[in-house]
Amino acid sequence: MIIIDCIFCKIITGDIPSNKIYEDENFLGFLDINPAGTLNGHSMLITKKHFPNKLEEMDDKLIKDFFVVLKKIISAIKKVSGTDSINIIQNSGEKAGQIIDHIHFHIIPREEGDGIIISENRQHKKDNLKEVAEKIRNSVEN
Amino acid sequence: MIIIDCIFCKIITGDIPSNKIYEDENFLGFLDINPAGTLNGHSMLITKKHFPNKLEEMDDKLIKDFFVVLKKIISAIKKVSGTDSINIIQNSGEKAGQIIDHIHFHIIPREEGDGIIISENRQHKKDNLKEVAEKIRNSVEN
Repeated sequence: MIIIDCIFCKIITGDIPSNKIYEDENFLGFLDINPAGTLNGHSMLITKKHFPNKLEEMDDKLIKDFFVVLKKIISAIKKVSGTDSINIIQNSGEKAGQIIDHIHFHIIPREEGDGIIISENRQHKKDNLKEVAEKIRNSVEN
Repeated sequence: MIIIDCIFCKIITGDIPSNKIYEDENFLGFLDINPAGTLNGHSMLITKKHFPNKLEEMDDKLIKDFFVVLKKIISAIKKVSGTDSINIIQNSGEKAGQIIDHIHFHIIPREEGDGIIISENRQHKKDNLKEVAEKIRNSVEN
């Protein structure tokens, strides 16, 4: 399924050009057009099928294959960028910084002083962790 | 394999207590002791086997199972935190912000004004993207 107004769907069809790093039947990897940091290789891995960026929308088989491809890509990006440090980031949902409405994971090679900041604001109160854990545990579908 | 000085290995053995949200033969999910942001549910998913935080060290079968579990956990965290927005983050390598030397992915539920900043410093020069893509593509092991 191709969504007409989706930039990533247009990259898949070739209507928008991209710098591809990986392609198979189900997935496409390409360089971010506006790469983060200072090293070469900031890439994205996407599904060819349009999902609105939630892992829960992908079936287990597709998830499995996706992350095996991600692993392959990471090795190649590290080799070419010459670093052993990378961030894997998914921003899922508007409040998490998602901009393009098509599932994608960022792979960003890192070096000292590259200006990338991941600031997690660790100021949350901690007195209810036991209760929160129990709620989540009970909510996990087995 | 348990590494004696690894905090996460000690959480697995129970020598350090944790607020578990998921456990099976191969994986453990638990709340971050110092949660980020403002919503409840900042969690980590780790392997029970000690890997120094590189996906490349995990075999394909383990990777596949890991991310199917991650998917399950995400649904539960979203439900309990009451948000549709999350970040999935792996900081792999010291320059990427890795602190604990044992493979882990963060799942962070997000809301407006939670103080979390993911600033990617998009100032990299872009004139060599084609060449970079070719190098990575050639380096991906198929």
